[in-house]
Amino acid sequence: MGSEKKEYEFLSEIGLSSHNLGNYVGGKWQGNGSLVSTLNPVNNQPIAQVVEASLEDYEIGMKACEEAAKLWMQVPAPKRGDIVRQIGDALRSKLDYLGRLLSLEMGKILAEGIGEVQEVIDMCDFAVGLSRQLNGSVIPSERPNHMMLEMWNPLGIVGVITAFNFPCAVLGWNACIALVCGNCVVWKGAPTTPLITIAMTKLVAEVLEKNNLPGAIFTAMCGGAEIGEAITKDKRIPLVSFTGSSKVGLKLAARSVLFASVGTAGQRCTTCRRLLLHESVYDQVLEQLLTSYKQVKIGDPLEKGTLLGPLHTPESKKNFEKGIEVIKSQGGKVLTGGKAIEGDGNFVEPTIIEISADADVVKEELFAPVLYALKFKSFEEAVAINNSVPQGLSSSIFTRNPGNIFKWIGPLGSDCGIVNVNIPTNGAEIGGAFGGEKATGGGREAGSDSWKQYMRRSTCTINYGNELPLAQGINFG
Amino acid sequence: MGSEKKEYEFLSEIGLSSHNLGNYVGGKWQGNGSLVSTLNPVNNQPIAQVVEASLEDYEIGMKACEEAAKLWMQVPAPKRGDIVRQIGDALRSKLDYLGRLLSLEMGKILAEGIGEVQEVIDMCDFAVGLSRQLNGSVIPSERPNHMMLEMWNPLGIVGVITAFNFPCAVLGWNACIALVCGNCVVWKGAPTTPLITIAMTKLVAEVLEKNNLPGAIFTAMCGGAEIGEAITKDKRIPLVSFTGSSKVGLKLAARSVLFASVGTAGQRCTTCRRLLLHESVYDQVLEQLLTSYKQVKIGDPLEKGTLLGPLHTPESKKNFEKGIEVIKSQGGKVLTGGKAIEGDGNFVEPTIIEISADADVVKEELFAPVLYALKFKSFEEAVAINNSVPQGLSSSIFTRNPGNIFKWIGPLGSDCGIVNVNIPTNGAEIGGAFGGEKATGGGREAGSDSWKQYMRRSTCTINYGNELPLAQGINFG
Amino acid sequence: MGSEKKEYEFLSEIGLSSHNLGNYVGGKWQGNGSLVSTLNPVNNQPIAQVVEASLEDYEIGMKACEEAAKLWMQVPAPKRGDIVRQIGDALRSKLDYLGRLLSLEMGKILAEGIGEVQEVIDMCDFAVGLSRQLNGSVIPSERPNHMMLEMWNPLGIVGVITAFNFPCAVLGWNACIALVCGNCVVWKGAPTTPLITIAMTKLVAEVLEKNNLPGAIFTAMCGGAEIGEAITKDKRIPLVSFTGSSKVGLKLAARSVLFASVGTAGQRCTTCRRLLLHESVYDQVLEQLLTSYKQVKIGDPLEKGTLLGPLHTPESKKNFEKGIEVIKSQGGKVLTGGKAIEGDGNFVEPTIIEISADADVVKEELFAPVLYALKFKSFEEAVAINNSVPQGLSSSIFTRNPGNIFKWIGPLGSDCGIVNVNIPTNGAEIGGAFGGEKATGGGREAGSDSWKQYMRRSTCTINYGNELPLAQGINFG
Amino acid sequence: MGSEKKEYEFLSEIGLSSHNLGNYVGGKWQGNGSLVSTLNPVNNQPIAQVVEASLEDYEIGMKACEEAAKLWMQVPAPKRGDIVRQIGDALRSKLDYLGRLLSLEMGKILAEGIGEVQEVIDMCDFAVGLSRQLNGSVIPSERPNHMMLEMWNPLGIVGVITAFNFPCAVLGWNACIALVCGNCVVWKGAPTTPLITIAMTKLVAEVLEKNNLPGAIFTAMCGGAEIGEAITKDKRIPLVSFTGSSKVGLKLAARSVLFASVGTAGQRCTTCRRLLLHESVYDQVLEQLLTSYKQVKIGDPLEKGTLLGPLHTPESKKNFEKGIEVIKSQGGKVLTGGKAIEGDGNFVEPTIIEISADADVVKEELFAPVLYALKFKSFEEAVAINNSVPQGLSSSIFTRNPGNIFKWIGPLGSDCGIVNVNIPTNGAEIGGAFGGEKATGGGREAGSDSWKQYMRRSTCTINYGNELPLAQGINFG
Repeated sequence: MGSEKKEYEFLSEIGLSSHNLGNYVGGKWQGNGSLVSTLNPVNNQPIAQVVEASLEDYEIGMKACEEAAKLWMQVPAPKRGDIVRQIGDALRSKLDYLGRLLSLEMGKILAEGIGEVQEVIDMCDFAVGLSRQLNGSVIPSERPNHMMLEMWNPLGIVGVITAFNFPCAVLGWNACIALVCGNCVVWKGAPTTPLITIAMTKLVAEVLEKNNLPGAIFTAMCGGAEIGEAITKDKRIPLVSFTGSSKVGLKLAARSVLFASVGTAGQRCTTCRRLLLHESVYDQVLEQLLTSYKQVKIGDPLEKGTLLGPLHTPESKKNFEKGIEVIKSQGGKVLTGGKAIEGDGNFVEPTIIEISADADVVKEELFAPVLYALKFKSFEEAVAINNSVPQGLSSSIFTRNPGNIFKWIGPLGSDCGIVNVNIPTNGAEIGGAFGGEKATGGGREAGSDSWKQYMRRSTCTINYGNELPLAQGINFG
Repeated sequence: MGSEKKEYEFLSEIGLSSHNLGNYVGGKWQGNGSLVSTLNPVNNQPIAQVVEASLEDYEIGMKACEEAAKLWMQVPAPKRGDIVRQIGDALRSKLDYLGRLLSLEMGKILAEGIGEVQEVIDMCDFAVGLSRQLNGSVIPSERPNHMMLEMWNPLGIVGVITAFNFPCAVLGWNACIALVCGNCVVWKGAPTTPLITIAMTKLVAEVLEKNNLPGAIFTAMCGGAEIGEAITKDKRIPLVSFTGSSKVGLKLAARSVLFASVGTAGQRCTTCRRLLLHESVYDQVLEQLLTSYKQVKIGDPLEKGTLLGPLHTPESKKNFEKGIEVIKSQGGKVLTGGKAIEGDGNFVEPTIIEISADADVVKEELFAPVLYALKFKSFEEAVAINNSVPQGLSSSIFTRNPGNIFKWIGPLGSDCGIVNVNIPTNGAEIGGAFGGEKATGGGREAGSDSWKQYMRRSTCTINYGNELPLAQGINFG
Repeated sequence: MGSEKKEYEFLSEIGLSSHNLGNYVGGKWQGNGSLVSTLNPVNNQPIAQVVEASLEDYEIGMKACEEAAKLWMQVPAPKRGDIVRQIGDALRSKLDYLGRLLSLEMGKILAEGIGEVQEVIDMCDFAVGLSRQLNGSVIPSERPNHMMLEMWNPLGIVGVITAFNFPCAVLGWNACIALVCGNCVVWKGAPTTPLITIAMTKLVAEVLEKNNLPGAIFTAMCGGAEIGEAITKDKRIPLVSFTGSSKVGLKLAARSVLFASVGTAGQRCTTCRRLLLHESVYDQVLEQLLTSYKQVKIGDPLEKGTLLGPLHTPESKKNFEKGIEVIKSQGGKVLTGGKAIEGDGNFVEPTIIEISADADVVKEELFAPVLYALKFKSFEEAVAINNSVPQGLSSSIFTRNPGNIFKWIGPLGSDCGIVNVNIPTNGAEIGGAFGGEKATGGGREAGSDSWKQYMRRSTCTINYGNELPLAQGINFG
Repeated sequence: MGSEKKEYEFLSEIGLSSHNLGNYVGGKWQGNGSLVSTLNPVNNQPIAQVVEASLEDYEIGMKACEEAAKLWMQVPAPKRGDIVRQIGDALRSKLDYLGRLLSLEMGKILAEGIGEVQEVIDMCDFAVGLSRQLNGSVIPSERPNHMMLEMWNPLGIVGVITAFNFPCAVLGWNACIALVCGNCVVWKGAPTTPLITIAMTKLVAEVLEKNNLPGAIFTAMCGGAEIGEAITKDKRIPLVSFTGSSKVGLKLAARSVLFASVGTAGQRCTTCRRLLLHESVYDQVLEQLLTSYKQVKIGDPLEKGTLLGPLHTPESKKNFEKGIEVIKSQGGKVLTGGKAIEGDGNFVEPTIIEISADADVVKEELFAPVLYALKFKSFEEAVAINNSVPQGLSSSIFTRNPGNIFKWIGPLGSDCGIVNVNIPTNGAEIGGAFGGEKATGGGREAGSDSWKQYMRRSTCTINYGNELPLAQGINFG
């Protein structure tokens, strides 16, 4: 069995073994669903076995969670913050192991694996302070002896469904804020990264138990579409969080493009997919990039020096091959890469395509390290190309011209939710709000006032006088 | 023809005549759709004629509006605020005429008609100051020589579809904010209140023209479902605003209940529909109310002393009669009222029903002056009844107990968006955010940070140094 | 007598005559102090006579003001906003006359005179919206059944002492905000601009009286140091507002420098006094400037085309002459100007001085159109020179380099309260906070959250439960 | 020597010995000032010896601190937050020892000693999140192609001078915020609590050194008035923080009054000094209190059950005795207590005085467990008495009447900075702003937007276009 191997020994340090119950429901570990194996994308060999959730497990979990919600929302917010602080400390103490597991099971390189867990820790630290700042407002009333309050109250339960590409960061953005806001969390991780789901949950569970709080405050399940759909349709869960998709650049320096297009093997929703180059620099920048691309080390993500690990699943590899065919059929020319690598692992070549901005395929998302190089003549044309796709998550410009910087972030500039200048499209900080516009959906996670999405707002007006004046000076009866 | 009558002479003061083009598109008044008559609900006789919009009118309007949007969003926000200030002043100078028209065409009593126009004026005043406060944020970055900005940019075009019950207040909430935010407005008023739509638009149009701005910044159309649907489905309009629905009380003073249940003939979305009375005061309060109800003066809304005008249309009157039948079939007992009043006008009796909180009909909205009296034993039971309906707009408690006040506005209290204490459910001030939770939808209009719904948010990160540090301390390549 | 002249006839349009009572105390115009003449700085001939306040007038005013404060602070903030809106409208209707008077009595050119009154009107518009946004906060408490509120309450009375150089803008910044915040205002204008004080006050008084409010809400007095000192020492006035001083540029375009150094005859506290030029552009920019300076039209500020009016008083003219002597004695070289102009008026030549940045005189403020040209080699050196003076009000950089822009506004950049890029040092918008650091004092007026300076803050904690938990989990007794 | 005693053995766990260098300057422990002994207030016997700072030590410290400030302000704020997080963790690991030391050296009971250190830890946790939220604003400009920013930059160095009564909490409020804001801290603790100063500093120093940061970022000195004055007058320190004083109640429950008047032996600036009782409950409440007071256990603060430890110094004891004489001479009647307790320690009896509200002594602060009982007839009279003293820090009302609650926190209510309802005057949470009005000074520490006091504000306007429009539409030249 996978985890008996020497290289898997570290899994026991974070509570995992060769056979694992995949669901923490009502404060207990159990599982009555399918028995599945989780695979190493480097060779598609099993790492360990996991028992997924049945619908009965789900229902037990939800009932306990509903009960726990009534208690949790009455715990003062700063006390909830202290619990999240302890969760952050628990993760910090296991940072290297968790990063290693993430790299092993998902396939991203180790630096990215550790960086992703660090992001959850950053979110915990951020949420602790936030727990004393979930402020409503006292608003002056137009009526004497009246006070208006804007209050923020918890929603109750927040569902979080995460994908394989960021199996713990997205949980972090949602759960840290949801918890300090007074909500219980119901988490379903990706079906292909169950060990991360279990390892993270074990650390959270320990903190809850040590503080004599119901484990159901954090309910987690491994499973596939069936459980995902149950969460989505469940009326007891007022908010379910997913995540988004896509975008751009102008005169990028080679290092940025490299990280933005090859990082996480092109499987980030902020991966750079379209590279817009001004005609005056097109040839020169492309030449630099082709040189860099040829030096990219492909291989085991846990090995030092590797920049490009495997895609997550064999299906991803097949999709890549199909995608390249479609690209060619629409006039795309492969400048470098373009082929899957033979063998057991899910490896593909980092690829650059020369193509017209109008080709349909450019407006879709291949979720692989494929970069389209596009040529433009004016700033306005570049913005138009940037805004011509349905997705609206992330975008970058590289320029030293202040006029273009401020136009780019202004009303006639990029229409994305993330608008960068001289940095890659990917790699957002948690202090800002993360999310996109247009087809990507207008929701926001992580920093700024994203916490408001996890609460319900009440506009309260209190009359503490003895008269009944009406607003707008109406006289009635 | 209606408006030739002496009582309708005042209409010429606000630019109306017996025959009116109903659409202001591309800065011109035109109309190629149906010719319709608008009726006085007191007697269902025509007041004047209006030519509605055809789909061709609509398309001309939208094209001009799209063009105007590019210009308008580049006008500095404080300058946009100055335009809205002038609109407010224009409305202020015609306040009495507009209030009178509103009363005439919609059927609410004069005090309410004038109050509603005043609310639009208040919104204009509010939006002027707001135009200098549409603030984004400068957020500390974790990377040296980086600055994070949260920018708010206009959406482009905001569609507003309003209903007969608040034919101008809802326009005011949306248009004032949308305009200072840098958006053009496309407004379709209710098909049964076209004169108000036209009169309001004429005043706005004058201001735009006087300032040499394209009239298409404010595009308005009279019409029915066809135009409404065109707006809703139009991809050029990123935000379309509608409005919501219902709720409660405990130990209300008779005057509050009267205003909240009988005001606007029960046709507000914040109308009080359910009256929860503690068993210890049930009989006494009900007796007071029955006395008040019997003294309510029913009649022409323009007449002094009238408290209850007609329902808006003959259909509303029929719905009332059907509703009373359903109520009776579910065990409801009519304590007072319950009958439509014979004659040409759309008058009905103000009605109080004694019924179980569990009856299905209690969870629906009749949109007529019908009040359900419900008995409860404990604070917790009352909150549970309050929260048991799918709607979540407005709710009030009447109490002098501070413990109950703070519980009522807290996590286990009312689940509505508007949570009042010792004031009626209706009659919100504009300084707070207006909107509901649950089936009512989570959107907000008017004050607080509702303006954010009219803009798109960009999280901008600017690297002004010469290095490329990555977030979460990742080292790549 | 002055105001009988034809050119002074317009004064009657704003309530002024040849002999005026200078004090509005307790809602009445009166005066028992000195009889003074106000002079036209173009020729030092009297315009009109004014009776200043005695200490008895002052005391009567303060007593009435104290009484009025109790009433005014209980008027709901949005109603107070409506009063300020009416004040703005009153000023708007007399904009041209007021601007003309300001130009006549103070000596700045007409475009600036009208611009200054416009600024007060802008402040009124801004304050109206603000009156619904004087928000406190609801802060999550660490204790169950507790709520923390941050409330903002009025201070009571705000004293405003203004100087001759901005005789109404500074009143506008303070009074508009102070009034919506719920404070009464006690204003003493400059002894040399009493007509502006009286004209402004008449318009405010009319609004108060029309709304049946006590005139003492706005108390105004003409007078000199005695009254100023009375205000400053009066314990009944918790806040007295004055205004500040000085600063810079780098590679300024000629037009900016011209406005910043010659505008208002160099008598703004934001006047550009030091011009730092990089050695590579020093000669070229200076040459452009010398050409511009020679074309500056000097003369009657009311005449079209005049760019430089008289200094405000004969004393200012003498100070200018003394200053030039000191400059020369410290090694300064006059490149252009440097002389007072003979005749009755207070005219002087616009002057550019070449001098070392280390000369003591450079660190003082001459309050005349004298510009020091200084040479620098590096960005860091320029910032060091900029920050080397005790004043810290305003500063500008002219550059297209984003790195320098963001360093300039960052922790190691300009240490002023106003930090501009590519615009002059003077001419602030009201939406931002206005004020300086270091010797200039850290107070702020006008926009942003400056309103908080006009209120007292209470941190309120309400226990609505039946237990008495202590903060920090302390167990006592 | 003191710390060789068994009961002092724990001191070595937090880096203390019988002889200690008292100053951490330029990252090194040194001392060239006086050698002093710190005393146990239970018996006035020495605990250990400390070498204070000379002015030479001070100057070395300041020079290093100035250098360190340039570096520290360029560390990104979230990284600074991470340092403060580590400081919090370091304190958490020594919580019990530090609390014990505080109790030993200052004399407050153990529960309060530990609670005070906990407050510093809470501040650290709060400041971590805050480090990503030190947000400036992006403000809409009235000019096209302009952007206004409100930036917050560090002040450089913040001086903190703390008193014996809260020897570490006040440091925590200031230092945690000052550090994340990018300032270095120069701390002088009370001359009578040097061990706490040293122990706290050692933990902070370790964190800085572990992170390879200059120790001078946190500079600490033991010493008396000479060093305090040096800090206050030093122009290199733009902000020096001290702390304030006093207040009230109405129908307080005995437990609240007990904690508020006897806690910390009456040596808090928020200690309850005046107890206002409505005439209808005066006798009854006083009787309860007298019973409670007689049961207060006086003794060693480290002993379980002790509620009243010694005053801090022998001088405090003498002041108490003098104070009682003054009270009597002004008509005060001792209801209980009133005497110092004979022996080595600084113990006094908890005291209740019946006296007129007008007596002068009532308006002063005795800083000992002395409570004045005052009788009133109406709510308005009670508020007037409450507001009649020069101090304005803290005040409480005990009532279940919502009208009185909201009046109490409104414009005509308590004029203190801390306004409580149904909780004692002392024991503030850190999430709110802490500070007073009137003679207490208007500054704020800890939560809300107090962080703004530790930064300088710049209003930045950036012109990124090619035109030069002026504000207020002025046309110049």
